[in-house]
Amino acid sequence: MKQKKYDSIRAVQWVDGQVRLLDQRYLPQKIIYKDLGSCAEVAKSITDMVVRGAPAIGITAAYGVVLAARQRYRQNPTHWRQPVAADLNTLLGARPTAVNLRWAIARMRTAMETLQDHPAKPLLAEALRIHEEDIAGNRKIGALGASLLCGGGVLTHCNAGALATGGYGTALGVIRSAWTEGKIRKVYADETRPWLQGSRLTSWELTQEGIPVTLLCEGAAASLMRRRDLHWVIVGADRVAANGDVANKIGTYNLAVNARAHGLKFMVAAPTSTLDMATPSGEEIEIEHRPQGEVLMLGSRQVAAPGATAWNPVFDITPARLVDVLVTEKGIIHAPDEDKLKRLMNA
Amino acid sequence: MKQKKYDSIRAVQWVDGQVRLLDQRYLPQKIIYKDLGSCAEVAKSITDMVVRGAPAIGITAAYGVVLAARQRYRQNPTHWRQPVAADLNTLLGARPTAVNLRWAIARMRTAMETLQDHPAKPLLAEALRIHEEDIAGNRKIGALGASLLCGGGVLTHCNAGALATGGYGTALGVIRSAWTEGKIRKVYADETRPWLQGSRLTSWELTQEGIPVTLLCEGAAASLMRRRDLHWVIVGADRVAANGDVANKIGTYNLAVNARAHGLKFMVAAPTSTLDMATPSGEEIEIEHRPQGEVLMLGSRQVAAPGATAWNPVFDITPARLVDVLVTEKGIIHAPDEDKLKRLMNA
Repeated sequence: MKQKKYDSIRAVQWVDGQVRLLDQRYLPQKIIYKDLGSCAEVAKSITDMVVRGAPAIGITAAYGVVLAARQRYRQNPTHWRQPVAADLNTLLGARPTAVNLRWAIARMRTAMETLQDHPAKPLLAEALRIHEEDIAGNRKIGALGASLLCGGGVLTHCNAGALATGGYGTALGVIRSAWTEGKIRKVYADETRPWLQGSRLTSWELTQEGIPVTLLCEGAAASLMRRRDLHWVIVGADRVAANGDVANKIGTYNLAVNARAHGLKFMVAAPTSTLDMATPSGEEIEIEHRPQGEVLMLGSRQVAAPGATAWNPVFDITPARLVDVLVTEKGIIHAPDEDKLKRLMNA
Repeated sequence: MKQKKYDSIRAVQWVDGQVRLLDQRYLPQKIIYKDLGSCAEVAKSITDMVVRGAPAIGITAAYGVVLAARQRYRQNPTHWRQPVAADLNTLLGARPTAVNLRWAIARMRTAMETLQDHPAKPLLAEALRIHEEDIAGNRKIGALGASLLCGGGVLTHCNAGALATGGYGTALGVIRSAWTEGKIRKVYADETRPWLQGSRLTSWELTQEGIPVTLLCEGAAASLMRRRDLHWVIVGADRVAANGDVANKIGTYNLAVNARAHGLKFMVAAPTSTLDMATPSGEEIEIEHRPQGEVLMLGSRQVAAPGATAWNPVFDITPARLVDVLVTEKGIIHAPDEDKLKRLMNA
């Protein structure tokens, strides 16, 4: 794949017949790659957050389907479809919120239906296509999003970058494009508790590319917005419902409320593979809750007093009315709603 | 001092001619007390955050004045005032934002003016009075604040508890009183990055007292507010300006914006010693910034990528218009403004 300036990172790769993941649990301290040869390993890596970010999860799962088909076909070339179907169900359950997982598996399933035998090669071609299309889509999102910016500072949340996608990133794709064009003066990133994706991943990704980044605690975002140098909040999405409601990393809704209160613009950058027209609104999106220990502890060290409990939702829902623009590879939607999303998806 | 139920914690004490501080940097893992015999040690302990919380800092500083007077009088009983004045300036510079530090030192200075010799004993009496008054005031604040509650959940931020005051606490005083009276169903606390005062201190203080507490990351507060079981946000203050603007731990303003957006009530609980009628508004309050490493690192471990910077203000300003009630030991002010604050202070 041809890479551009500010585009040096690939967290998911297909190398020598295996899926290679940049293990995001160790960044930025250690650069560790994991090579996965089976669909079960892929599912576990998604659950364990070796790979995270909705589009990256989808692409990884697509490669996982290739591994499943290869293995089951080797085991039994006449009855491989049924065991693969079971593998796909395991993959589907690896993380509940990101719709790209479901989307990628559905697309691979469709590709599989027309195959007779030797499924691995044509399925790999489809997975590589999904991957390439994601990167191309992100470049388009980057260019479209950047066209809306005109100087000033931006704030992002979590990591919606190359690390979270096939490459280039969604929110960070917009920031990459805008930075290249001199349309951003300053990039701020929430540290993004409890997993610190902002501190660990976004800081790593941007400094790797030579784009300066300033981190802040989530609680400081409202104060930052009162200053005059911040113009946009730019985030990715784990799922966009048919009415434009956005599920994204916990803390996103908090930023959306504050952006509106302070007169800042709020941009969601996401490929159409993240749009879930089968889910009417955010109300119907299952929000994953993770273990309390992620809040009560820092790494392996207990922080909170024994007996304290924690509320640890991983995602939140930002209602469409707080989204100023949704930027997809198919175009920009201002003030997204069901009609506009339908028109975009049917375009 | 007579202690009531749910009132077992004293972070500042005068013991055997020294100031005893419960070292809040090690809670809840270790219970370490530091005994300080000099004003210089007191100033350093305030700067180093052995003690924190505006009223607790004020009380500690008052005891520090006693130590300064005792030492300087021993060194030279005829010329002790000038070196004490220098010590007091050092104390004043220990932390910039909390007005109680200035308030307590001013009160001790006034007490000092009328003294002829042997200043330590009468100054100690004054410091003990400041301490006792703070606790009594907090009990009053607790009762007044609790009178406004009527079931449901509350969310607090940082630690405005016994640990932050002479005892009983301000925001946690209200929560203690309301809990005693069965007027709260559930207590939530922000973990409060980057120092984690919520996770470390509020969780310890409340579990010590047998009051259950559920922690959450700051980014999750807005989502919590969308649920129906949260009625009030209750916080303390480091300084309240003459117009009712409130300086408090970073993240407070964020909660205030969200509380208003979600139709929750926002209560600031603070003694009148925190009211600074000499500062017209929040605009004039100096906001302390602490080292970037507090955000870029977790304890001694680097988290962010090398090259990333951090924006780390310790406090923020909540404009008076977002404060539904200010509860002081002298009474409750609804929708605080300059006139109401003036009337309260002159009452």
